[in-house]
Formats: sequence, structure tokens, C-alpha cells
Amino acid sequence: MPFNPEHSAVTVLGLGPMGRALAGAFIDAGLRTTVWNRTAGRDRELTGRGAVGAPSPETAVAASGLTVICVVDYDAVDAILRRDAVTDALKGRTVVNLTADTPDRARKTAAWAAEHGIGYLDGAIMTPATTIGTPASAFIHSGPGELYQEHRPALEALGGTHTHLGEEIGRAAAYDIALLDIFWTTMAGYAHALAVARAEGVTAGELAPFAMGIGAFLPPLFEKFAHDVDSGGFSGEINPITSAASSIAHIVHTSEAHGIEAGVMRTVQDLARRVIDQGHGADGFIRITELLNPR
Amino acid sequence: MPFNPEHSAVTVLGLGPMGRALAGAFIDAGLRTTVWNRTAGRDRELTGRGAVGAPSPETAVAASGLTVICVVDYDAVDAILRRDAVTDALKGRTVVNLTADTPDRARKTAAWAAEHGIGYLDGAIMTPATTIGTPASAFIHSGPGELYQEHRPALEALGGTHTHLGEEIGRAAAYDIALLDIFWTTMAGYAHALAVARAEGVTAGELAPFAMGIGAFLPPLFEKFAHDVDSGGFSGEINPITSAASSIAHIVHTSEAHGIEAGVMRTVQDLARRVIDQGHGADGFIRITELLNPR
Ligand SMILES: NC(=O)c1ccc[n+]([C@@H]2O[C@H](COP(=O)([O-])OP(=O)(O)OC[C@H]3O[C@@H](n4cnc5c(N)ncnc54)[C@H](OP(=O)(O)O)[C@@H]3O)[C@@H](O)[C@H]2O)c1
Ligand SMILES: NC(=O)c1ccc[n+]([C@@H]2O[C@H](COP(=O)([O-])OP(=O)(O)OC[C@H]3O[C@@H](n4cnc5c(N)ncnc54)[C@H](OP(=O)(O)O)[C@@H]3O)[C@@H](O)[C@H]2O)c1
Repeated sequence: MPFNPEHSAVTVLGLGPMGRALAGAFIDAGLRTTVWNRTAGRDRELTGRGAVGAPSPETAVAASGLTVICVVDYDAVDAILRRDAVTDALKGRTVVNLTADTPDRARKTAAWAAEHGIGYLDGAIMTPATTIGTPASAFIHSGPGELYQEHRPALEALGGTHTHLGEEIGRAAAYDIALLDIFWTTMAGYAHALAVARAEGVTAGELAPFAMGIGAFLPPLFEKFAHDVDSGGFSGEINPITSAASSIAHIVHTSEAHGIEAGVMRTVQDLARRVIDQGHGADGFIRITELLNPR
Repeated sequence: MPFNPEHSAVTVLGLGPMGRALAGAFIDAGLRTTVWNRTAGRDRELTGRGAVGAPSPETAVAASGLTVICVVDYDAVDAILRRDAVTDALKGRTVVNLTADTPDRARKTAAWAAEHGIGYLDGAIMTPATTIGTPASAFIHSGPGELYQEHRPALEALGGTHTHLGEEIGRAAAYDIALLDIFWTTMAGYAHALAVARAEGVTAGELAPFAMGIGAFLPPLFEKFAHDVDSGGFSGEINPITSAASSIAHIVHTSEAHGIEAGVMRTVQDLARRVIDQGHGADGFIRITELLNPR
């Protein structure tokens, strides 16, 4: 049966910035969209655009074969879904959970869903709410392949790129956690760099164009280092970890000389030192992965 | 007088991967190039291409009006330049120091140079040795503007982009330190993310394409956050630091549940918590800059 949005219905639970963006994209794609949020009144703009505002989560999920939930975390998901009225109403229907949390919680939620005869897919949204409905958005999904194929047309109404990472339900959350790890660590580095730059009389606006240049350098390095890690050959030919350690020492020194704590960089320095102490000083910095999680 | 490479001479001290790349680019640009390295034999390929191998640093610097030095750090620079024979030979000539170190050391080296009647420019190389001589290379410089203008043609023979950041001699090192801070913190985040991904059964090669996607997101965020920091308006409208703290808690939890230490992320978590405890939970994550270095 070809996808016909007019015959398709979707419920969105959670109307924070992301839930509102998701519901808005479903409406724009012509899906019959039912919405609910814990705090009333968040649906006003959406009902003005044609969404149906449900008075309770149980009536909301009963209105559609597919429910997309996107709230702050899985404690909030549980608070909404794990009430008898809601669980009963979901029986035989499907939940796509786009809330961010840990792989562990995704697995627990899938077990609960299986126990109650509820179809369950887990996903994560890799891009800001402002991208939803546009080609710039990116979603990752995991869970039963057949269920994913069934609901794929509705999910693709959200725009952007959708990648099914596999049957294992925790996979989307695992990717999400790893990518957020890179993202927030980078942002902490940027915040610290701006603090040190300011102490040196360099404004954030002056440093930013050069920082932006780093963005262009990262992708090929990420690719190279991924290969090093998977192959276990951590070549330091271009840049040995001893050289990185020398740069890191300069950063710590300059920061602390200005009275700016350098806790993150000191922790990185300790990791590098331990790799060198293991006798791997000629290897590349990415050998830290092996220190953190030996194969 | 227009720049004529044939009348121009340059000396390169230090023939590590970077020094060799610099000397090679000078040779290719037609400059009369004299080279020296502490450990003998590193100049073989360069002399084969037309460089003059000098027997000592004093004879090396005496061969050219301009000496470029690029060794491991300023301790090595001092070990080479601060010997009477070399200092005397440099009188009235110019040193461009492309070695990476701290702003502090740049200032001390400039003071020593001034004391001995030596022209001094400090610089840093923002790109790998492999980029030298190509448009992809990027150099930053600081020190007297007139001296920079005088030697600019020779420096531009190295290819790429050259930016004079100002007269204050420590400026190039300050930018360099701040940019290396971003770079190495990011790489530490990547190493940790790969360790967590592996524990979740996700290979580095599987994660890498998504990590590479982050590279594309960073530049506009760096720009926005730089504006926040300079203006002191840390809007958390798109993403409040409380929301970042929730992601960070998920990362720490998942990492430690796998027995993978999460020292960097725990330090970041502590910074975020302190910003929230100060009553700034609705602000953006970049307010951490203000915590680290209050204006
Ligand atoms: N915003 C983005 O750009 C973005 C990007 C990628 C991923 N995400 C992820 O998307 C999810 C939603 O994010 P968001 O931006 O919409 O804002 P959020 O602040 O993370 O979540 C707000 C939503 O959670 C609900 N909620 C919180 N606690 C609840 C509870 N105990 N019971 C029921 N509902 C509860 C709120 O309801 P009330 O209105 O009643 O408080 C609201 O609907 C998060 O997991 C986030 O990490 C967001
Ligand atoms: N390689 C890159 O891609 C890159 C990129 C950007 C910036 N940089 C910066 O460029 C500089 C040079 O880097 P590099 O890659 O060429 O390798 P490096 O390992 O940082 O430096 C090697 C050079 O330093 C010399 N050296 C070390 N200790 C010395 C001492 N006590 N006295 C005299 N010479 C000494 C070595 O001489 P011997 O041969 O005698 O040991 C060799 O010439 C560093 O500051 C680095 O941070 C490098």
C-alpha cells in the first residue's frame, strides 16, 4: 500500500521545543496529528494549524496507530506511558521514542513494551529543533526492522536523513551518547579556550574565525583515527602523543598562570601521560581510546 | 623594491617534520636556503634539492638576513640561539620563531632579542607539516608591523594564509594555545566516545560518519557562542545548560556503567553544575567561560 498521508495518523506526546517541531512537521506533511503535553496550553499554536489537542495521554494515543514521544528523559517517558490507562490504550499500537537517554533505558523501555504487546522503536535526533521538517535534520533509529519499515513513511514526513542502525534497540541511544560526548567535550574546550583567550586580551570574536577553521580539519582526522582504533595500529608518525603532551602542558601552564582552572586539560594530560608511561609515546594521541577501554 | 626570490636568502634552524617542510617550501619558491639541525644528517634530502647545509647554527644564521626557527619548544630555541656565537651572528638580522610554546615564552624571547639588537617576530603554524607550500597551510604572526611587512614576501613563499595578529609579540602564541585547547579537548572527547561506542558494540568506523557530521555543525555554533561571550548575553533559549547537564549525566552514567572512566566529562559536569548553582540554569552552556574567567 503506497503511503497516503491523509489516511495516516500520528500522536505526539511532549510539546517542548522539539515535540512542537515534530508535531508541526507532521501537520505540514498532511498527517492527522493529535498532540498532548503534561502542562496544558503548549498545543495552542499547533491546534491553530489543524492538530487535535487531546485531553489526556490515553485519549491521545488511542487516536493514532503511531505515537511519537519526545520529552526531557525516560523518567518523563515512564511517568507518561507507564500508567494502566495509557499502557492499555497502546496495546497493538507502536511507540517511537525520540527522547534522549541511555542505551540501558532504551532496553528497559523495550522490555516493558514487549511485555504489554506494544510495538517499540527507539530513536534519537541529532540536529536542533529548528532543523525539523528541513533537509538539515538527522534522525537515527533502532529496533525491529519490519516495524521500522512500516512506520518509515510517517517518520520521513519529519524531513532530513533517517538511518536505521539495526535491530538492537539500544543502538540509537549508544550512537547518540557517543556523539553527545564528542559535542559537549568540544564545547567545554571552546568555553575554556575563550576564557584563556580573554585573559590574553583576545576577544571571542577575534578567535572565532580561527576556531571555525578547526571544524574543517576535524572530519578527515575523525576518519583516520577511527581507522586507527578499529585496526589497533595507532601510528604517531604525523603527530606522536609526546608532541600532543607538550602542547597540552603549554595549555595547562598558560591557563593556570592566569588563574584559570584547567581541570579538563589536566585530566587529558593525565591520560596522555599514562599512555606514554605504558611505553606508547611514539603512538598517536588516539591510543587513549585503548587506555580507556582495552580490547 | 619588488620581491625577487633569487636575491633573497633564508636560514631554517630545526629539521623535524615541520622544519623540513618549511625548508622544502623555501627551496621550491627559489629562495637561497641554508639549513641546520642539532642532530646531523636530517638535511640530506634538502641539500639534494639545493639547500646549503651549515656546519653550525652560527654559520647558518650568518648566511641569511632572515632565520626561521622551528623546533620542539622554546627550551630548544634557547639552547640553539642563546649561545654567544649565535647571538652575535644574529645582531642586525631577523628571527621568525615558528616554534609552538606559550605567550609568556614568546615575550621573554622578544625581550632577549631586543636586548641583543635582533629583529624578532613570533608565529605559529595552524596546519600539519603536510600542508606547507600548499594553499591549505595557515600561519599566524605577531610582532612589529614594519618587520613583518619586510619579511612577508619570504614568509608567503611558504604558501597558504598568513595573518598578522598585531604588534603584541605574545598574540600568535595566545591564539595558538587557545586553538590547541579546542583541538586537544575535542580529540579527547573523540577518544572517549570511541571507547564508549566500542563497549556498546559500535565500531569506530560505524560512528565516524556521524562524528564527521558534527564538524559541519561546529562553525556556526562557535560563531554564535563567541557573540554570547563577548556580549555577556548567554541565551539558553535554544538549549539551556540544564538540558546539557542532563545529556552529560547520561554520558557519565553510560561510560561508568561499562567501567570506562569519565574524568573529562565529570569535570565538565562539575562546571555545568556550578553554573546552574549560581542561578544561571536557563543560560546557555557557554556561560562556563564566565565561570572560568569572570570579566
Ligand atoms: N531541542 C532540541 O534542539 C533537541 C535536539 C536534539 C534532541 N533533543 C531531545 O529531545 C527531547 C525533548 O527536548 P525539548 O527540546 O523538547 O525540551 P526538554 O526540556 O528536553 O523537554 C521538555 C518536554 O518534557 C516534558 N516533561 C518533562 N518532565 C516531564 C514529566 N515528568 N512528565 C511529563 N512530561 C515531562 C515537558 O512537559 P512540560 O511542558 O509539562 O514541562 C516538555 O514537553 C530531549 O530528550 C532532548 O535531548 C532536543
Ligand atoms: N609537525 C606538524 O605537523 C606541526 C604542525 C603545527 C605546528 N608544529 C610545531 O612545529 C614545531 C616543530 O615540530 P616538528 O613536527 O618539526 O617536530 P618536533 O618533534 O616538535 O621538533 C623536532 C625538532 O626539534 C629539535 N630539537 C628538540 N630538542 C632540541 C634541543 N634541545 N636543541 C636543539 N634542537 C632540538 C629536533 O632536533 P633533533 O633532530 O636534533 O632532535 C628537531 O629539529 C613544534 O613546535 C610543533 O608544535 C608542528
